Amino acid sequence: MLQSQLFTRVRKEAPKDEVARNAQLLIRGGFVRKEMAGVYAFLPLGLRVLEKIKNIIREELNAAGGQELHLTTLQSPDVWEKTNRWDDEVVDDWFKTELKNGKPLGLAFTHEEPLTNLMRDHIDSYKDLPIYAYQFQTKFRNELRAKSGIMRGREFLMKDLYDFSLDRESHEAFYEKMKEVYMRIFSRVGIGEQTYITLSSGGTFSKYSYEFQTLSDAGEDTILFDPEKKFAVNKDDYSEEIFQDLGVNKDDFHFQETKSIEVGDIYTLGEKYSKALGLTYRDAEGNDVPVYMGSYGIGVPRLMGTIVEIFADEKGLVWPEEIAPFRVHILSLDGGRDEKVLQAARELHDNLEKSGIETLLDDRDLRPGEKFAENDFLGIPYRVVVSARSLESGGFELKKRAEDDAAVVSRDTLVRSIRN
Amino acid sequence: MLQSQLFTRVRKEAPKDEVARNAQLLIRGGFVRKEMAGVYAFLPLGLRVLEKIKNIIREELNAAGGQELHLTTLQSPDVWEKTNRWDDEVVDDWFKTELKNGKPLGLAFTHEEPLTNLMRDHIDSYKDLPIYAYQFQTKFRNELRAKSGIMRGREFLMKDLYDFSLDRESHEAFYEKMKEVYMRIFSRVGIGEQTYITLSSGGTFSKYSYEFQTLSDAGEDTILFDPEKKFAVNKDDYSEEIFQDLGVNKDDFHFQETKSIEVGDIYTLGEKYSKALGLTYRDAEGNDVPVYMGSYGIGVPRLMGTIVEIFADEKGLVWPEEIAPFRVHILSLDGGRDEKVLQAARELHDNLEKSGIETLLDDRDLRPGEKFAENDFLGIPYRVVVSARSLESGGFELKKRAEDDAAVVSRDTLVRSIRN
Repeated sequence: MLQSQLFTRVRKEAPKDEVARNAQLLIRGGFVRKEMAGVYAFLPLGLRVLEKIKNIIREELNAAGGQELHLTTLQSPDVWEKTNRWDDEVVDDWFKTELKNGKPLGLAFTHEEPLTNLMRDHIDSYKDLPIYAYQFQTKFRNELRAKSGIMRGREFLMKDLYDFSLDRESHEAFYEKMKEVYMRIFSRVGIGEQTYITLSSGGTFSKYSYEFQTLSDAGEDTILFDPEKKFAVNKDDYSEEIFQDLGVNKDDFHFQETKSIEVGDIYTLGEKYSKALGLTYRDAEGNDVPVYMGSYGIGVPRLMGTIVEIFADEKGLVWPEEIAPFRVHILSLDGGRDEKVLQAARELHDNLEKSGIETLLDDRDLRPGEKFAENDFLGIPYRVVVSARSLESGGFELKKRAEDDAAVVSRDTLVRSIRN
Repeated sequence: MLQSQLFTRVRKEAPKDEVARNAQLLIRGGFVRKEMAGVYAFLPLGLRVLEKIKNIIREELNAAGGQELHLTTLQSPDVWEKTNRWDDEVVDDWFKTELKNGKPLGLAFTHEEPLTNLMRDHIDSYKDLPIYAYQFQTKFRNELRAKSGIMRGREFLMKDLYDFSLDRESHEAFYEKMKEVYMRIFSRVGIGEQTYITLSSGGTFSKYSYEFQTLSDAGEDTILFDPEKKFAVNKDDYSEEIFQDLGVNKDDFHFQETKSIEVGDIYTLGEKYSKALGLTYRDAEGNDVPVYMGSYGIGVPRLMGTIVEIFADEKGLVWPEEIAPFRVHILSLDGGRDEKVLQAARELHDNLEKSGIETLLDDRDLRPGEKFAENDFLGIPYRVVVSARSLESGGFELKKRAEDDAAVVSRDTLVRSIRN
């Protein structure tokens, strides 16, 4: 893409009312725009990152047997009343609205109820199970305050998957599998090393549950983690009992304490929703049995904000390769519109794009200093400088965003290096 | 995909409260689910179709210079008050809600206001123009009645593009270009032949505007069209004057009258929103000039519903190839679980999938009659029957959904035929 045609530019300052570092950086880079507290629009660069994260999640969930669907925002009270989650006294972050005829509606803050209800049409026999259904869907949560940038929204995109299993045992097998699936997702988006499967207190159906916590000073949680053993416990739930329950020796661990961001959570729901909404299956003996369920969430902008918080440096954003808006950023330093330089830059851009390498070409009429500063700020993994000097030295100057060393290389070497 | 793992099945009946044929068929096929009047969830098969339509639109808009972004549902009153569109007396289909602190919010029924407002941050000089920005975004419209299935929703996905142009002339050049882009989109999704660029009355900024009308008895509009000249006029706006204005002879046309569905509309907005919201650019002489705008909409489920209405026959749905949920539907007729047949069917499925041909394999333990009926109903373009008989005859029985003739062919011939 030609940067001259991209309508956003890097700006010097973020709006004064934006307090979260992730949103400040993303707004300055032209990735997102703040519409109101906790409500962000995604501009072209930001949407590219978001879609890449979504695609990684989608690939991993499909490989695990997930079936994608798309439920609705508007919700009728009836199914929510059955689980006692319609009342504003019980759930305090509903946005409510109403139809012309006065019938109240809610904007979904989660989707256990409608999906459980929907599955009543599709689950009859034990032969129909298991079913793993997921969606990417905007959730609406009427938070009193929203000061964490894109990490805690009033309107935000969430991936939520639900398993509909025969019994506790088959649910638990899937739950274990999802731990690996989630870790694969977090590794692919670039934060595998910093992310810990973290033990925390369970709900009605299990003594413990697991969260995915990513080490970051921007986090709202505190965990105790052992980097060598890759083991972590939420500080709120740390106790001697845990080690007894797990059958391990506490003294084998060397814990450090740190702030962390919860980037994913996986819950055992058990029979809570299936019983309340009447979702049963007929077993081999002809008995009606409630379906056993679990839920698996990832807030997609939260994940994106976490990545920003972890990798950004004093020069701006730094994107991991798999989710960067572009893989390569070419800067054409064609002082005084040197046609030869601009032409070489354009050819390189077209070549890379044809090879399937997403490329942004800064073809604007700006001073080199401005181009370098914007390049650093946008955080695209590979920078290529095309100038009269680089062409004289036989090619293009290649540098990684996260490294300091630059080298002039030929086109073939360039393509090889970027592909790897 | 194995059909044994797909959680939806074709059902004999649609819900009694569903009056629209498109939704009746889609619900029976397991493509969508009705949550309430005008509010539909998309199940795996339906979401696949929707995503294919979206991708075709996206490809064509990107090729025309469109930049994709994603605005928000929640809307503050301030920008809408500037155009006098906040008041329920003026706009009667708002869904309204409010923040915890009592501040009113609306759910966007369109996005002219927020996008025009957003562009104030990005447009300074004439050098920044033109900008073409679009999104796929859920719109909320509090319709009094919603009886057209997925063709008129209270919550529905819309593609809306807006052009931000220097002046009327450059806007009009883009408007003309978009007529071609839209016709290419409608052709690719399979309804090019049935769709007419239709003259209708204009708004404040132009005497005429254009709609895209698709011939169908399910339509709410009536048009006069000449199939030979590919020319159409909305019946409401038909007059002698039109022909004078266009400088053509009325007697050269042979009009037929028909019901039709509006599948797309393109409007000149002129300076209405830019003036109200203060979106100006500095021209070469240093004067501040309001940006000249247009809007270009396609309701994605409406387009999908139109395709259903046009092609469905007495056996069920019929999908055009480019948007079908799968390209091939293999029926394994392995009476009594004939392992050889099932194995051959699985191998074929895996082979086709590896070649990038999306394939659904009916591997369920059902009678042939049921498999044939479901196959017909789902409307996947190519049907392949694998049975002991077909294998003895040297291969697989291939038939197109829209044709009657079937032939037994070898695997190589099969792949070649399906690829074409």
